[in-house]
Amino acid sequence: MNLSKRLAAELFGTFWLVLGGCGSAVLAANFAGPVHGLGIGFVGVSLAFGLTVLTMAYAIGHISGCHLNPAVSVGLTVAGRFPARDLIPYIVAQVLGAVFGAYVLSVIASGNPDFHLVASGFASNGYGDRSPGHYALPAAFVCETVMTAFFLFVILGATDKRAPAGFAPIAIGLCLTLIHLISIPVTNTSVNPARSTGPALFVGGAAVDQLWLFWVAPILGAVIAAIVYPLVAGDARHVTDQKRVRVTA
Amino acid sequence: MNLSKRLAAELFGTFWLVLGGCGSAVLAANFAGPVHGLGIGFVGVSLAFGLTVLTMAYAIGHISGCHLNPAVSVGLTVAGRFPARDLIPYIVAQVLGAVFGAYVLSVIASGNPDFHLVASGFASNGYGDRSPGHYALPAAFVCETVMTAFFLFVILGATDKRAPAGFAPIAIGLCLTLIHLISIPVTNTSVNPARSTGPALFVGGAAVDQLWLFWVAPILGAVIAAIVYPLVAGDARHVTDQKRVRVTA
Amino acid sequence: MNLSKRLAAELFGTFWLVLGGCGSAVLAANFAGPVHGLGIGFVGVSLAFGLTVLTMAYAIGHISGCHLNPAVSVGLTVAGRFPARDLIPYIVAQVLGAVFGAYVLSVIASGNPDFHLVASGFASNGYGDRSPGHYALPAAFVCETVMTAFFLFVILGATDKRAPAGFAPIAIGLCLTLIHLISIPVTNTSVNPARSTGPALFVGGAAVDQLWLFWVAPILGAVIAAIVYPLVAGDARHVTDQKRVRVTA
Amino acid sequence: MNLSKRLAAELFGTFWLVLGGCGSAVLAANFAGPVHGLGIGFVGVSLAFGLTVLTMAYAIGHISGCHLNPAVSVGLTVAGRFPARDLIPYIVAQVLGAVFGAYVLSVIASGNPDFHLVASGFASNGYGDRSPGHYALPAAFVCETVMTAFFLFVILGATDKRAPAGFAPIAIGLCLTLIHLISIPVTNTSVNPARSTGPALFVGGAAVDQLWLFWVAPILGAVIAAIVYPLVAGDARHVTDQKRVRVTA
Repeated sequence: MNLSKRLAAELFGTFWLVLGGCGSAVLAANFAGPVHGLGIGFVGVSLAFGLTVLTMAYAIGHISGCHLNPAVSVGLTVAGRFPARDLIPYIVAQVLGAVFGAYVLSVIASGNPDFHLVASGFASNGYGDRSPGHYALPAAFVCETVMTAFFLFVILGATDKRAPAGFAPIAIGLCLTLIHLISIPVTNTSVNPARSTGPALFVGGAAVDQLWLFWVAPILGAVIAAIVYPLVAGDARHVTDQKRVRVTA
Repeated sequence: MNLSKRLAAELFGTFWLVLGGCGSAVLAANFAGPVHGLGIGFVGVSLAFGLTVLTMAYAIGHISGCHLNPAVSVGLTVAGRFPARDLIPYIVAQVLGAVFGAYVLSVIASGNPDFHLVASGFASNGYGDRSPGHYALPAAFVCETVMTAFFLFVILGATDKRAPAGFAPIAIGLCLTLIHLISIPVTNTSVNPARSTGPALFVGGAAVDQLWLFWVAPILGAVIAAIVYPLVAGDARHVTDQKRVRVTA
Repeated sequence: MNLSKRLAAELFGTFWLVLGGCGSAVLAANFAGPVHGLGIGFVGVSLAFGLTVLTMAYAIGHISGCHLNPAVSVGLTVAGRFPARDLIPYIVAQVLGAVFGAYVLSVIASGNPDFHLVASGFASNGYGDRSPGHYALPAAFVCETVMTAFFLFVILGATDKRAPAGFAPIAIGLCLTLIHLISIPVTNTSVNPARSTGPALFVGGAAVDQLWLFWVAPILGAVIAAIVYPLVAGDARHVTDQKRVRVTA
Repeated sequence: MNLSKRLAAELFGTFWLVLGGCGSAVLAANFAGPVHGLGIGFVGVSLAFGLTVLTMAYAIGHISGCHLNPAVSVGLTVAGRFPARDLIPYIVAQVLGAVFGAYVLSVIASGNPDFHLVASGFASNGYGDRSPGHYALPAAFVCETVMTAFFLFVILGATDKRAPAGFAPIAIGLCLTLIHLISIPVTNTSVNPARSTGPALFVGGAAVDQLWLFWVAPILGAVIAAIVYPLVAGDARHVTDQKRVRVTA
C-alpha cells in the first residue's frame, strides 16, 4: 500500500476518533432535556471513544494499521513493528485529522445556541484546575503514562502472531473504552497526543499550556510497553500489526 | 438468491430496526417508575439501534446483504458493490418495513394509557425546534451528512475483502451505536431515510415537512464515502458486500 | 452427546439465565446507596440477560445447543432443526433450572434485611397492573409475540449454515439484550416461558394467574418465525443449531 | 513458554485487573461533577472489570493462559487443565500484581485532594456492614460461591476444544461483567481472591478481617465447577486452556 493512501486513512481515522469521542462528550454527555438523566455520561463517552477505534480498525486496519495515535506509532516503532521512516508522516496525518475533526465538531456544536466552545472545555484534556476531578499534575502524569503503557501492551499482545486472528480491533477498541471508564475524572483521558491537540488548539489558553503532558506521558508509557512486552512475550517472530490485521480469520 | 426473498429480508430487517431502535426510545428511554433513573436514556437507545443492525446482519447478511437503509443501498451502488437494477426495489422494501415497524410500535405503545403519539414525537427526527437539543438546520445537515459518510466508510472498509471475515456485523452495528451516542441531541439521529420516514408518517405535520433533510443529507454522505473509500483503499478487487458477509470465517 | 448430559447443560444454563438476569434486576437495578444513581437500571438488566445467554452459548452450545427457553426449543423443532422426541425433556429441564435459579436468588436476596420477595415483584413478568409501565393485556401479548418471533428469526439466521461461524452466541445474546432494552416497561420482558415460571412460582397470586400469557405468546411468536424464516432464507440445507455452533471458526 | 515469562504475564495482567476494575470504582463510579449523573455507576464498573479480563486475555492468553485469579488457577488444576506444580507460583504472581495495582491506584487517587483511602472503602470487598447493600455473611458466602462456580463453568466451556476458537476472551470477560452486574450490591463482587487482597491490605482493619471469605468461597465455587463441568460435558479430549487460546481462528 503506498504511503499517501495510508496517510489518508490515518487522517480520516483520527478525524473520526476526535469527532466521535470528543463529539459524544461535547454534544451528549451532559444532555439536559425535559426528562432528567438522558445524557450519556462518562459510560457513553467511554463507549464512544472505544467504538471509534473498533470501527476504524475493521475499516482501515488493512490499509494503514489504524494507529490513529502518535503514541501508538512511536510504541510500534520502538517495538520493531513499524518502519521508523514512516513515523513522522503518520504523526502529521494524525494531528491534521484530529484538528480537522475538532473543527467539524465545532461547526456542529455551534448549531446549539447555548454552546460556548471555551466555557464548555470542548473535551480538552487537563490537570489541576482543568482536571474534571481536580487531580494534581503528578497523579495526572502517572495516570496517563500507566494507561498508555497498558494500551500499548494490549495492542502488542492482541496483534501478536500467536493471538487469535481478527479479534484485535475488539480488544484494542474496548481497551480504550476501559481506559476512559477509569480515567476521565483524572485528565478527561488522553493516552493520545493527537486527540489532545485537536480540541486544545480551539480552546487555547491553559488548554494549550497543559498540552505538553499529553504528549510526554503517553509517549513515555508507549515506549515502556514497547520495551516490556517483548521481554514478557518472548520471541514470537512478530509480524507488523498491519500484516497481522490483514490476515483473515 | 432470488430478488423476492432478498426484498422480504430487507423488509423484515428494516421493520426490526425501526421497532427496536425507535421502540427503545419511545417505550424505555424516559421510563419514570417508582425509582428514579431506571430508564435507558440515550445510551440505551444507542445500543438498541446498533444491536438491531448487528443482530440482523448475522441473521440475513447471507440473504440480502442486510442494508436496511436506502443511503446504504445508494452508497454501495455508487461504490460498484450493488447492482443498480435492484436499488429501487430495495428502497421500497426498506421504507415499507420501516412504516410497518412504526405501525406495530404504535400498537404496543398505545397499550400505555399515558401515551400520546404526536406529543411524544414518536422518535421522529428533526432540526430546529424539533431537534432534541434545538440544533439549527445547517448543523443538523452537516451532522447527518458527516455521520452517514463515516457509516458508509466503515461499511465499505469492514466488508472489504482484506478485512477479517465475519466481523463486519460487529463493526457496522456498533458504528451505528457510536453515531447515536454522538448525535441524538442534534437530530435524534437518522443516517437512514427509511428509519426517518416510518415514524414521521405517523406523527405528520412538521415531522413530514422536515423529512427531506433525512433523505438528502444521508444519501449525500453515502455518496461521498462511496467516492472517497476506493481512493483511500486502493484496488482491492472488491467483492460485493453480500458475497463478503456470506463467506464464513 | 447423550440426552442426560444435554439436559443437565440446559438445566444449568437456564439456572444461570434466571439467577443472572432476574438477579441483576432484583439485586442491582434500583440500588439506592449513599450516592444517587449507582443502580444498573434497565440498561444493566438488559445487558445481564443478554450476557447470560452469550456466556452459556459459548460454554454449552457444543453440548446441548444452549436453548435455555421452551419457546426456542419449540421454534427449532417446528423449523426442523431439533428432534421432536427431545422437546418435552428439554422443556422440563429448562423449567427446573429456572425454578432452582429463582430459589437460589431468593436465598441471596433474603440476606438483605429490607428485601420483601412478594412486594418486590421478584422480577416476575406481568401485564396491566403488573406491567412496569401499566401496559394493557393486548399490547403485552403483541409485544411478547413479536419480540419472540424476531428472537427466533435471529437465532435461525445466525445459526444458518451460510452465516459466519462462531458468532451466533454474540448475535443471539445481544438480541436478548436488545429485546430487553425495548420491552422491559411493557411486560418486564419474558420471551421465555421458563424464565417467567421460575420467579412467578415464588411470588404466587396474580403473578401465577398471568403466567399463561408468557407461555402462549412466546411460543406463538417462535412458531411464526419458524415458518417465516425458511420462506425468506430459501433452501440452505439447514443443519441443526447444535452442529452449527459446534463448528469451530 | 518458560515459567518466569508466564509469571510476569500473570503479574501484569492482575495488576491491570485491579487498577482497571477497582480504579473505575474508586475514581469514576460516584463522580459528582457540575452536572448530576456523569459517574459510571455499577454498570460502568461492571464493564470495566470485564474489559480488564477481555483485553488481557487477547494480550497474554498465548503467554500464560491469562488466569489473573487464584480461584481460576485452582479450578483449572482440579479440572486437569493446569499443572499442579505451577499453581503456587501463579497465585503468588497474581497476588503481587494485585497489591502493586492497588498501590498505583492509591497514588493516582491521592491526586484528588478529597480522596480518603480508608473512608472510601477503596473498592474492597465485604459482607454485613461492609457490604454495599448490607447483605449478611451467609448470603455473601452463597453469592460468591455460586458466581465463581458459574465463572469457572463458562471458562471451562468456552475453552473446550469443541467451542468456537478465538471467542473465549469475549465469553469470559463478559461473564465477569455479568457477575458484577448481579452482585456488586452483595459483596462489591470478588470471585477473585487476589483482587480482594490487593485493596484490603491498604484499607486494613475489618477489610482484612473479612478477607477469608473472599479466598474460601471463590475457591470452593471453582472446585465445584471443575468437578461438575466434565460430568456435563463428557469426554472432550480437553486441551489445556493455554493451548486452546493459542490456536488461532
